Amino acid sequence: MVFKKITLVGTSPDSFDAAVDDAIDRADETLDNVKWVEVDELGVEVASVPSREYQAEVEVAFELEG
Amino acid sequence: MVFKKITLVGTSPDSFDAAVDDAIDRADETLDNVKWVEVDELGVEVASVPSREYQAEVEVAFELEG
Amino acid sequence: MVFKKITLVGTSPDSFDAAVDDAIDRADETLDNVKWVEVDELGVEVASVPSREYQAEVEVAFELEG
Amino acid sequence: MVFKKITLVGTSPDSFDAAVDDAIDRADETLDNVKWVEVDELGVEVASVPSREYQAEVEVAFELEG
Amino acid sequence: MVFKKITLVGTSPDSFDAAVDDAIDRADETLDNVKWVEVDELGVEVASVPSREYQAEVEVAFELEG
Amino acid sequence: MVFKKITLVGTSPDSFDAAVDDAIDRADETLDNVKWVEVDELGVEVASVPSREYQAEVEVAFELEG
Amino acid sequence: MVFKKITLVGTSPDSFDAAVDDAIDRADETLDNVKWVEVDELGVEVASVPSREYQAEVEVAFELEG
Amino acid sequence: MVFKKITLVGTSPDSFDAAVDDAIDRADETLDNVKWVEVDELGVEVASVPSREYQAEVEVAFELEG
Amino acid sequence: MVFKKITLVGTSPDSFDAAVDDAIDRADETLDNVKWVEVDELGVEVASVPSREYQAEVEVAFELEG
Amino acid sequence: MVFKKITLVGTSPDSFDAAVDDAIDRADETLDNVKWVEVDELGVEVASVPSREYQAEVEVAFELEG
Amino acid sequence: MVFKKITLVGTSPDSFDAAVDDAIDRADETLDNVKWVEVDELGVEVASVPSREYQAEVEVAFELEG
Amino acid sequence: MVFKKITLVGTSPDSFDAAVDDAIDRADETLDNVKWVEVDELGVEVASVPSREYQAEVEVAFELEG
Repeated sequence: MVFKKITLVGTSPDSFDAAVDDAIDRADETLDNVKWVEVDELGVEVASVPSREYQAEVEVAFELEG
Repeated sequence: MVFKKITLVGTSPDSFDAAVDDAIDRADETLDNVKWVEVDELGVEVASVPSREYQAEVEVAFELEG
Repeated sequence: MVFKKITLVGTSPDSFDAAVDDAIDRADETLDNVKWVEVDELGVEVASVPSREYQAEVEVAFELEG
Repeated sequence: MVFKKITLVGTSPDSFDAAVDDAIDRADETLDNVKWVEVDELGVEVASVPSREYQAEVEVAFELEG
Repeated sequence: MVFKKITLVGTSPDSFDAAVDDAIDRADETLDNVKWVEVDELGVEVASVPSREYQAEVEVAFELEG
Repeated sequence: MVFKKITLVGTSPDSFDAAVDDAIDRADETLDNVKWVEVDELGVEVASVPSREYQAEVEVAFELEG
Repeated sequence: MVFKKITLVGTSPDSFDAAVDDAIDRADETLDNVKWVEVDELGVEVASVPSREYQAEVEVAFELEG
Repeated sequence: MVFKKITLVGTSPDSFDAAVDDAIDRADETLDNVKWVEVDELGVEVASVPSREYQAEVEVAFELEG
Repeated sequence: MVFKKITLVGTSPDSFDAAVDDAIDRADETLDNVKWVEVDELGVEVASVPSREYQAEVEVAFELEG
Repeated sequence: MVFKKITLVGTSPDSFDAAVDDAIDRADETLDNVKWVEVDELGVEVASVPSREYQAEVEVAFELEG
Repeated sequence: MVFKKITLVGTSPDSFDAAVDDAIDRADETLDNVKWVEVDELGVEVASVPSREYQAEVEVAFELEG
Repeated sequence: MVFKKITLVGTSPDSFDAAVDDAIDRADETLDNVKWVEVDELGVEVASVPSREYQAEVEVAFELEG
């Protein structure tokens, strides 16, 4: 059994929880076996967006098929 | 005055805030003098739970009695 | 174009999101060109406050005028 | 010449060496030009497996075709 | 559900795998719900032992009873 | 909006700037929405090349299509 | 032979040396086999004490009985 | 003698050397006693600029007047 | 309530304790609400001073007025 | 009593344990008072060797003569 | 096969590339088998030199003779 | 101008300051151009010495002759 990890940055105008969920939702769309997620960094984009944009960089681990 | 720090991982189906609170609540049950808490890591368990489980690893500092 | 970064610790009785917003709000009061924010540390003060106080240490980046 | 690095977690019921080899074997199946591997983390899963499962998170570097 | 993590240093005259197992074995003697283990550091003691002593510092996570 | 980050190692016989550009050029060939790049490590390969080869490990962030 | 490590924060109105000693003294009161100590962090509390309070966070390693 | 350190991010369309110089030049305009500079991070902005913009985050140390 | 942190490097011909105090003394001269201090790095300058000069880089946290 | 630490990279076609031993063996040939060893990094060279070569970067501490 | 790593700080009035080359040139003068170099830190000395001096701390790895 | 850095561990029965001085004294005996010293780690050996032994791991930088 081998897992692969990819790094995504999710975003949300509302909260860090929602930014993390945003990244996991995206991973779930294209990957069948998401197992766990680690949060690497949290930040807020202020300048280039209407209001504040919460951002969460996460590592998503999923199982590779045998 | 000496403080001791222990490491707990709190969990919640709802949010990271609630996962941190979960760990502090547990510490408060058995320790009288909790002083402060530091968040070490945030993660999400996906595979082995019905939905997503937010997890927060924290260090809880409390004062040792003299 | 040069940016400067300063380090603030925002606080909130409610959540980590609100603690981060607290720090950004304070930066916005005195700085014109806040660009982005990085979260360095999250913690909870327990002993010296009525209830729990969520704290977020952030780096706030803003553009220096030419 | 450009290399790409991907992150895999290999597993083995026997040893950390075998867990690392497990990840490299998987990479070799689908990649032609594996060059070197760096070990990022070692761990042991205890609860969800019959016995102990040794785990090794590694970064696998391979050469991209020109 | 709350987990607690403790830090142990296992030792072995034979190998790092055995040093990690030594620490897990000790945890299993006194703890009912060991879940997972993370390896923090590996080292070798040379001077104060007959031959070489392999050492592994690990964090052992176990579930606290409700 | 979700970003993905991949890790590349660019190389150049001339300079670290050129090694970073080498990696970004490669990313631009196959990815439409490269947004920003972070430099993780710099090094020089000496033994297996005619002269010195400057190397730059970078993380390339690009926007995933919705 | 297995060692366990615990984390203490010693304090002193005088110096960092005394803050480290404070933590080791406390460990010696309740533990028989303290082996070595690693200093993790040094700090000074200014606001909530009459004068300055030097603080030292240390990891204390002791041998577990067989 | 006390030094203060501030964090700046210099930018340049040309190179990392020029981005570091850009930050030092800015510090020299307003500070009399710049002593030394440490490079914390290097990056490249790609999306929001005409071409590539090299960025260097640096800490600038200067002597405070007595 | 928002705190700001600044980075100072204190120096002393005598000891690290005195170097840390040197930085805090300087902060106390110009800031009303110094709360706590974290030690980031310790060093010794040997070449450019008559004898050895102990240096301590610290982060000083103070409360911003409302 | 003063110790010195040097950094070696041991290699082995067989295992990480053997790679660490390889480095310690080499240190023992030329140094009389090797005291302890810390493992800094583990890796595997794949491309430039017949099969896989396990590598271990270690710091070797030995006592300097008075 | 065992490698040894030493730490050098190269300097140049011109650029970071030249500072790294400066360190490698020095290593090449006294060592026969330099294999690879890792850049640990970049900085600029401003106060004690006529103009700016670019500095690069590098680890130089070379093969020990059998 | 090239500097070299070596790693020493100084010891003292009295204090961390004295342990650092112990390492610098040793370096001064055999090296002509010691420039600066960085403290990497502080610890206390308890078990194998009569009383407590303060230890300081330092990096000593000196100028190589041209």
